[in-house]
Amino acid sequence: MRIVVLAGGIGGARFLRGLKSAAPDADITVIGNTGDDIHLFGLKVCPDLDTVMYTLGGGIHEDQGWGRADETFAVKEELAAYGVGPEWFGLGDRDFATHIVRTQMIGAGYPLSAVTEALCARWQPGVRLLPMTDDRIETHVLIDDPAGQAAEGAAEGRPARKAVHFQEYWVRLRASVPAHAVVPVGADQAKPAPGVLEAIAGADVIVFPPSNPVVSIGTILAVPGVREAIADAGVPVVGLSPIVGDAPVRGMADKVLAAVGVESTAAAVARHYGSGLLDGWLVDTVDAATVDEVEAAGIRCRAVPLMMTDIEATARMAAEALKLAEEVRA
Amino acid sequence: MRIVVLAGGIGGARFLRGLKSAAPDADITVIGNTGDDIHLFGLKVCPDLDTVMYTLGGGIHEDQGWGRADETFAVKEELAAYGVGPEWFGLGDRDFATHIVRTQMIGAGYPLSAVTEALCARWQPGVRLLPMTDDRIETHVLIDDPAGQAAEGAAEGRPARKAVHFQEYWVRLRASVPAHAVVPVGADQAKPAPGVLEAIAGADVIVFPPSNPVVSIGTILAVPGVREAIADAGVPVVGLSPIVGDAPVRGMADKVLAAVGVESTAAAVARHYGSGLLDGWLVDTVDAATVDEVEAAGIRCRAVPLMMTDIEATARMAAEALKLAEEVRA
Repeated sequence: MRIVVLAGGIGGARFLRGLKSAAPDADITVIGNTGDDIHLFGLKVCPDLDTVMYTLGGGIHEDQGWGRADETFAVKEELAAYGVGPEWFGLGDRDFATHIVRTQMIGAGYPLSAVTEALCARWQPGVRLLPMTDDRIETHVLIDDPAGQAAEGAAEGRPARKAVHFQEYWVRLRASVPAHAVVPVGADQAKPAPGVLEAIAGADVIVFPPSNPVVSIGTILAVPGVREAIADAGVPVVGLSPIVGDAPVRGMADKVLAAVGVESTAAAVARHYGSGLLDGWLVDTVDAATVDEVEAAGIRCRAVPLMMTDIEATARMAAEALKLAEEVRA
Repeated sequence: MRIVVLAGGIGGARFLRGLKSAAPDADITVIGNTGDDIHLFGLKVCPDLDTVMYTLGGGIHEDQGWGRADETFAVKEELAAYGVGPEWFGLGDRDFATHIVRTQMIGAGYPLSAVTEALCARWQPGVRLLPMTDDRIETHVLIDDPAGQAAEGAAEGRPARKAVHFQEYWVRLRASVPAHAVVPVGADQAKPAPGVLEAIAGADVIVFPPSNPVVSIGTILAVPGVREAIADAGVPVVGLSPIVGDAPVRGMADKVLAAVGVESTAAAVARHYGSGLLDGWLVDTVDAATVDEVEAAGIRCRAVPLMMTDIEATARMAAEALKLAEEVRA
């Protein structure tokens, strides 16, 4: 069975570990979000790709969910001693090596997809990990700028706004200020990375893990051609809600959902993807009452436990997603 | 008193620490060798500048003479795990931070002289540290290439040769094979860094510390205009022999002296610099018998202890050098 998974960072990576356990013989291709990528200290950092790679390759810091296990921070301390920031992004020494290798390869002319393949040669994640694009897409978030001047013609009394890099919004500001818009800058000019459209066209099942629907899966879908390829693939597309009850299972997905006018509920996220894209949707058992609402929107829905407490629980979620896909197919 | 010192790595840096102690009120400008610079892992590494900066700034690994104290090697281990080399160049985590900052600044368009000034803002070495040039000069060493093919027209039976980067010769091969030539590639096109010629023209004394006469001081003198500026400065130029007895005090200077046809003796090195450049020369007391030979070459010479066993001994050496300069001046 050929499974294609659109993945962000921690949620996607943990789901994939469960999926590998539930479908050990499946041929899994992961299309990873690169909108979170950022240049720090002159190095190209790909947080979501690395989280998938480290998690599936056994190098992840388990409790934290991102970064490397057994990490040290000598480089970061020294950079701070030089007065070189930002200090709010926690790069450890082991992690730095990944970014050094990546940056060196990109400097030598290799596209990100080739670099990712080379890094995975070490980590052996057991999936084919593809960046969504080799082109530069940077997710920017529009926030209030109390110190700024309102644009000419702006409504009276409306504060000035500014765009910040997604990582600045997410990591430095911890999503503590309202996000007025989320813009994948460069997406209109980007092309899917080699293999992305082919993997989608050849898939038996396409899965949206409980990743962030806006800044992770939404950004992947913003790469021209990807959404259409999924809609045209003619195979079941099933997703798992990242919202349980009225809050994200982890992270701050609610903050960016508000920016795109989507309520922070499992049903609202399903409607946001829409029946033109999504065939099946899993909500948590606490949201069982919303199953009818989702099905009324033309999306087959089941309520099952959706807390990724350990690999076994996650594998059961993945198995339920594959079972739902077979129901859709039948 | 304005002192200009031409410095390589360990020997120059340790001498400078003694000079600062002997002449605490002097205004010292160091012209540092950059011919040893190398790009590793996509990062620009300046071993000699960093050795001076770390030594005078209190960050040096004292026993080793290069690299940082309290160093760790997580980045290097990880790079090796990715199969990315070379492994023979020992970059520690703290040291990596320096190269990351430098590479980022150079990528942003700053010349090496501005980068060095920025790095020194942290280390406060107590001297003005200038790279000899902002242009790229790479010292290459010509060695035998048993696996290679002799160039067409080469003398029969003469093995093929190849040029390797100085660091490959010095660090990887540990100068264990004959060096047939030492070539500062790019020197003919290089210009002295901003401030270099001005410092020389404004100096009261110019000092050649016991650095390598070929690959350190020799490379600095190979930057067009530097040798002439020193000869024309009209102030005492004094040096300290890096050779004591018939061997280098440290390092492998004898290997590269052979490549330029200079005997490994204190007197031969003085004659190599020549009376057109050098006014005074200190040899170690064990070489007292060569004083007459040096003076016969037109260079004032004294025999004093030249082992930099500690800062006090080094300060006495520096004081002797300054005293010799005053004798020359008078």
